[in-house]
This record gives sequence, C-alpha cells and structure tokens, in this order.
Amino acid sequence: MAPGDLQRDLLGVLGADGLVAEHSQRRTYESDGLTAYRAIPALVALPKSTEEVAGVVRICADHGVPLVPRGAGTGLSGGALPHPEGVLIVLSRMRRIIDVDVVNQRVTVEPGVTNAAISSAVAPHNLYYAPDPSSQIVCSIGGNVAENSGGAHCLKYGFTTHHVLASELVLPDGEIIDVGGPTLDPPGYDLRGVLVGSEGTLGVVTKVTLRLLRRPEAVRTLVADFADPATAGEAVSAIIAAGIVPAAVEMMDNLAIQACESDAAAGFDTEAGAALIVELDGPSAECDASFAQTVMLCQESGATAIRLADDPQERALVWKGRKAAFAAMGRLAPDYLVQDGVIPRTRLGECLARIAEMAAEADLRVANVFHAGDGNLHPLVLFDSSRPGETERAEALSTGIAELCVAFGGSLSGEHGIGADKACSMPKMFGADDLDVMNRVRAAFDPEGRCNPDKVLPTPRLCGEKPGRYRPHPLEAAGIIERL
Amino acid sequence: MAPGDLQRDLLGVLGADGLVAEHSQRRTYESDGLTAYRAIPALVALPKSTEEVAGVVRICADHGVPLVPRGAGTGLSGGALPHPEGVLIVLSRMRRIIDVDVVNQRVTVEPGVTNAAISSAVAPHNLYYAPDPSSQIVCSIGGNVAENSGGAHCLKYGFTTHHVLASELVLPDGEIIDVGGPTLDPPGYDLRGVLVGSEGTLGVVTKVTLRLLRRPEAVRTLVADFADPATAGEAVSAIIAAGIVPAAVEMMDNLAIQACESDAAAGFDTEAGAALIVELDGPSAECDASFAQTVMLCQESGATAIRLADDPQERALVWKGRKAAFAAMGRLAPDYLVQDGVIPRTRLGECLARIAEMAAEADLRVANVFHAGDGNLHPLVLFDSSRPGETERAEALSTGIAELCVAFGGSLSGEHGIGADKACSMPKMFGADDLDVMNRVRAAFDPEGRCNPDKVLPTPRLCGEKPGRYRPHPLEAAGIIERL
Repeated sequence: MAPGDLQRDLLGVLGADGLVAEHSQRRTYESDGLTAYRAIPALVALPKSTEEVAGVVRICADHGVPLVPRGAGTGLSGGALPHPEGVLIVLSRMRRIIDVDVVNQRVTVEPGVTNAAISSAVAPHNLYYAPDPSSQIVCSIGGNVAENSGGAHCLKYGFTTHHVLASELVLPDGEIIDVGGPTLDPPGYDLRGVLVGSEGTLGVVTKVTLRLLRRPEAVRTLVADFADPATAGEAVSAIIAAGIVPAAVEMMDNLAIQACESDAAAGFDTEAGAALIVELDGPSAECDASFAQTVMLCQESGATAIRLADDPQERALVWKGRKAAFAAMGRLAPDYLVQDGVIPRTRLGECLARIAEMAAEADLRVANVFHAGDGNLHPLVLFDSSRPGETERAEALSTGIAELCVAFGGSLSGEHGIGADKACSMPKMFGADDLDVMNRVRAAFDPEGRCNPDKVLPTPRLCGEKPGRYRPHPLEAAGIIERL
Repeated sequence: MAPGDLQRDLLGVLGADGLVAEHSQRRTYESDGLTAYRAIPALVALPKSTEEVAGVVRICADHGVPLVPRGAGTGLSGGALPHPEGVLIVLSRMRRIIDVDVVNQRVTVEPGVTNAAISSAVAPHNLYYAPDPSSQIVCSIGGNVAENSGGAHCLKYGFTTHHVLASELVLPDGEIIDVGGPTLDPPGYDLRGVLVGSEGTLGVVTKVTLRLLRRPEAVRTLVADFADPATAGEAVSAIIAAGIVPAAVEMMDNLAIQACESDAAAGFDTEAGAALIVELDGPSAECDASFAQTVMLCQESGATAIRLADDPQERALVWKGRKAAFAAMGRLAPDYLVQDGVIPRTRLGECLARIAEMAAEADLRVANVFHAGDGNLHPLVLFDSSRPGETERAEALSTGIAELCVAFGGSLSGEHGIGADKACSMPKMFGADDLDVMNRVRAAFDPEGRCNPDKVLPTPRLCGEKPGRYRPHPLEAAGIIERL
C-alpha cells in the first residue's frame, strides 16, 4: 500500500479523477502485452499535461519511489510492467495533436495519441506516419518511441527512430528538457537517438515531433505461395539482390497461414508451405516496372501460385489477416509465446530449419510469421499451460530461439524491446564493458535508478550471479509479482 | 613540451616511426580545415592498429593528459584542433578495408580510409557508400563519423548516422567496446547514434561497419538558372511539394556561380542570379517520369534556362564545379569564412534576404552555395584580413548568420559540426537543462574530461560565463564524476 502522504501529494497535482488508488482498479494495469509477468502498481497516475507529469515525477523523486511510464500497454516485452512500490504513469489521457505542419511535413503530438490516429489526422493532406506496428490501431506513439517500434513497412521506411525529430522529456528529477530539433542533424549529442528505444528508463516523454511522408502515388501488393519457407526465403533474396526495395516483405509458414486464414478469411491458401506478402510503393512508373520484375522473380524462385491484391479492399484484407497473426494463434493452441529476434537475411533457411529441430526436440509446435525482408523473425511457440511442464518447455524453447538468433550473427530483439523479459539475455549480445557504458548513460539521466528499474539492462539483483541464463524474474521469486 | 616519460611510454607502444615529437613536424597539425584557431599538440601519435590506439589512450590516462583524435583534418569547425598539453591521435595510417560483405551490403573499414575509397572498393559489386561530403576524396570515414557528415545527396539518402551500423570504440580509459550491431535496430541504448556526431569527445573510433547501397539504375541531372535565389527557392518548394524526392538539390547564388565557373569551367551562366543543380536517381522508369515533371516545375517556377547534364562526363563536371565552391572563393576574395546553418526550407527566401541585409550593414559580400533541398545553408563571408577590422566584422557577421538560422527555427549547424568554433553558441539553441544532460552523457564515456576537451559543449572556462542554473550532478557531488 502506498504511503498516505505520497497519495496526498499526488492528489494535489492530479485531482481525484487523475489518481487510481483502489486495489481492483490498479489491478487492471498489472501487465502489458506480455502477460507472463504481473505486478500491481502502488498508485496509478493519469496526468493530462506535461506540467502534471513533471509534478508527479517530482513527487516520486521527493518520496524516493520508482516510476514506470506506460502508453497503451500493448508492448510485448514487459517494458511497462509496473513496480509494486512505484507509481505507474499512464499517458493515455495526453492525446492531443498539437500541431500539423503540412509544408515542412511534421506533426507534434502528445504521447498518448495512437499510431493510427496520427496518419488519420494528416490524411487530408496526403501525408502519413510511416512506422506501422501490427498493433497500430491501439498502440500509442509514446510507447512506439520507448520501444523504437518497427512494423511491416520498416524495411523500406525505417524504424521509429528514423521518424522522430524531437521530443520533450521529463527527467527523473522532474526537470523538463527538449531533445532533438526540427532538423534531421541537430548539433550536440544525439540524445533524441538515445531516447528512442530506451524503454522508459531515461524519463517520461511528454511531446514528440514526427516526420511525415507523402502517400505514395501507387501501391502494388501480391501474395505468393511456396512449398516451404526456405524456398520463399530464396525469393526474398532474389528480390533484394535485384536492387528492388519493397515497402514490405512478410512471410508466413503453414501454421501461421492456417491461423490467419481462419481468423480473417483473407484468401490465403491453407495448403501452402509458406506465403510471402510483397508490397511495392512509390511513383506509378517505378512501381509498375518493379512489380512486374518481382512477379517474375517469385515465379523463377518456385512460387506455386501468385495472387495480386491490387484492389484496395483486397489489399486491406491481406494486411488485416497478416496483422491479426498473433491474436489468431489462439485458434491453434490455448497459449503461445511471441519471440522477436533478428538474423542476417542470408541465413533464413538455415535458421528456420534449426528452429524446427529445436521445436521437435521440445515436442512443441512453432508458427513463423515475420518481416522477412529485414530478417526479423517472430516465432510463435504454441503450448498448453494446463499440461504440466509445458509452460517451462515453451519458455526454454522461446529463449533458446532468441539466443540462436544472436549466435547466427543477429540480434536478441528486432522491434519488441528487451523490457523485463530479456534483460538477463543481454550479456549474450553485449560484453561487460559495453553494458557498463550503457549503465553509465542510464545514470546520466537517472542517477538514482528510479525510472523503470529492472528493465533493459541486466543486474546481479535481477539475473543472479550468472547473467545470461534464463531464470524466473526475481520479483516473482520474491513473491512480489504473480505468474499466470 | 611533453614530459619525457610520456614520450618514452608512447615510443614503447608506437615505435620511433609512430610518434612525432619534433616541433616543426608537430606544427603541421596545428589546425584542421578551420584555420582561424591553431594550437601545436604536445605529441602526435600515428597508430597502426586498434591495440596501438588503446595503448596510446591508456598512457594518456596514466599521465592524465588530454587526447584529440584526428582523421584527415578537413573538418570546418575545429573539431580536430589540437590541445597544447595533449596527444593528437592521427588515424591516417589505419586505412585497411577489413571486410566487404556483398550479400548483406555492408563494409567494415578502419577510420583512416577516405570516404571516396570506400565507394571505389565496392564499385565492382555495383555498390556504393551514400553520404558524400564535398571533401570526399580526402576526408576520412572516422572524421565523417565524428562530425555526422552530410553531403549533396543526403537529402534523399540521409546523413552518416543513417549509414553507420556499428563501431569499435576505444574509451578514454583505454577499454575497447563495440557499439551498435549488424541490424538496424539493436537492443539497448543507441550508443551508436550518440557516438556518430560526438566530434571525438567520447573516445577514438577504430573500426566502423557501414551500410552500402546499390548503385541506382539511372541518374538524371539538370542545371536551371533563375533571376534570383528566392525564385529558385520557389522551384525547390514546388519540386518537393510534388512528392518528388530528388537525390540532390543544390543552389548557388551569382557570386558562387562566378567563383565555381572561373574554377571549373563547368558551363554555369555567370550572368544568372541563381542556379539550381537538381539530380534524380533510381529505377529508370521512375527517374524518367519524375525528371520530366521536374523540368516542367522549374519552367513553371520561372527558370530562365535549363541545361540537361545527362552525359556522365558533363555530370561529373557539374559536380566538380559545385564541390569546388569553397576552394574557388579564393578567386573572389583573399579570405573567407564558411558558415553552416539550417533553416526550414519554407523560409529560404526570407532568410537569404535578411542575410543580404546583414552583409550590406557589415559592408561585406556573402556568397551562398548550399543544400537547398534540406535547407542547409553555407553562406561564405568574403573579406580581406589585411584591412584593419575586416576580420572582426566578418567573424561577427558569420556568427550572426548562424544565430539567425536558430532564430528562424533552424539549427546552428547542418553538417560541419560545432567543434571549437560554435561551442559558445550552443546556449542559443539549447537550454541549460538540455546542455546539462549532454554533459552528463559525455561524463558517462569520459568522466575525467580528457577526450577532445573544450569542444562541442560550452563551459565557463571556454566561454567566460557562468551558466546560471547549473546544479551539481549527484555523481559529481558524490565524487564519482568530475566536473567537465
């Protein structure tokens, strides 16, 4: 239970409707999209302005309590897992679109605005915001900044960090600073860059200025079926090698196709061993020429069927099917874990084969649906938590897959972040000296370590004496957080 | 004079041919491309490997002396200005191309490799390295990383930071760390991003992995003449507003045209009030369609003449003329200062008019040659240092122009960096809290403040003023970090 005077002080800043103190209401914030970990925050703040955020953060500093920022709570790595002794700062009420600068193609918004709402707001000007996580209808831009979110179209257009020009940030001591600037290359250190992807550990983002793109003149989309993912992977390599930069290249294996099709009825062939969704966009002249070449390359690589989805409604249905993939897994198994690793595109077939072997060894099924163009895998480990031991096997397999990606010369995480989930795997990818510098950068913003503690970077407290081995979350071992 | 045992220790690591101790030889390093500031380094180290760099840096740490990294010395903001009591670490001997990964389109090089040498090395694979500073034939990639260098084609392809995937870095205590990774979105803080553009203040880059692009299928170039820069600016706006993203859009005013033409004889019309160089590249189909539209938009905006430079030799000559602009100013005046500021593209005409007024008030001429597409101005203040008081008037005018850019909602620097030159102008652009965080990030890498001191960030010692709101950092109060 929160100390009475912390609550009283917060009430003074937020008013009664801006503070959630009642246990059952706080419980609704116990996890984000990674439901394996749960913790009930001591108090939940719902600020309406930068000044209120700064007030809340200063009160946390005065009382020496942790704070955890939270957007829409759709994150998949537990980045917004509350701290049981801390204040959860929920930014969902800050959803104003502050300024649309059409000529300079920029928009300034509050952090609670959803990703899709930004593109909707600027659509009348033929502009849009490029990064498109699958959760874009509900996820907030503040969360996107925290996690440096990606999406299907990041192959061509880059990640969140390539689209954030500037941000207002409340530091853990309550000071308000501006990072970045109106130009792409402001002087001084790139604090904007270090903030994007810092997963809420450096402060609370209260305003963000984003780059907007013009809607492409033309969009062309195809779905190509293949005998298996390895063959589909060869088609991906052939397209890239031809110098074509598709807007998106997504791959689904047979299990993923089955799940998506049963959910969205988008016309995927549930008999196909693998399917590619390839989308090109740009000026019509370029798009048409490159699209014809892409169709040919898919055929030459052994596509068994190619369906063009040029009708806007058909294209929307294809993407709806693809973006519903995670949710659709419920049709195949009672439980699943989403993994998020990156491998060099050239080692796709090899890596998928090894994942299949690992799945067979663990006696579990793994569905694969992923951003093939940039080698960002999302293996979904299917399991049934009601069967004794299966949850543990699934977790071990999922962690093994992430570390396999590192061993293949890739990365622990593509776009979902490290959060609470993978902090203890960071030493698989970074040396002690590297992590030491990251800790020092963190301390430059947050010397007291109160801002989203126990996330991103491994600590002896968090990971035990041997960081790098998966083990239960220590807050769980201490009985502070509950486990499904 | 350097202490004898510092010199002896360095000799032990570098050997006699790796250390420059003789005064007249050290003097050749007294400035970089910004010759207004000069200092003779205590010693000059010429390491041949990462191990030698780490050895030199450790010895500097042991002796408590400053170190300044230097690439080719072409920088225009005094970033490589030596420290008179410190060791200048010149990376020009480290020029190995370590690995070319054609399939994944990456190259790993040592910092002394020149920008142009990278593209030459990968040209047989139809690849190139995109950022192209005008000094690309001589400038080093290490210097490009330090300054986050731009170039004419950064409008479409982005700055150095968008092309650096990873780097090896020797920290100021001699430890060697890796930042970044093979993927575009590695987990943890984006230390890669904070390193690029840090102007040698965070350590010494000893290896860098870069993204390569495929050479575009087609390139189309035109030179369009206009009555004045404001009219040419309207053409730039019209092109961008049409959704065309040219590879480059460069503008020269009449004075710049005269200088370039007398130097390169590239066929620029010396009577024109302003000229635009517009280059498109990409797939032929797109390029041809967009190019026709660009020609039309130039005509509609009032171009008095349009010359197509489609022949590769003619195109090369146009670029040679443009890129020689700074050097060619010697034909117009005995001395000149290059400024580097950014303004919103939409305020181009307004800003150029104000610069002309300021020049008239100072009784000096200003030539303008710049990256018009991204609003990155390079006003060249012409003067004659032999006339009493003219140097001071020129410096005041140049500084005034940089601060005008900030007042217009732009930036102090586009691509040349802050270095020694503009550190004291940083408070015009950043608040005390912003600069405080940058200082703390610097201290996270360099707690003793020995790495390229007195560059980038203003200090009371450097700028002779007491920042009013400075509060000691808790780590400083605890004696863990020292005040820079």
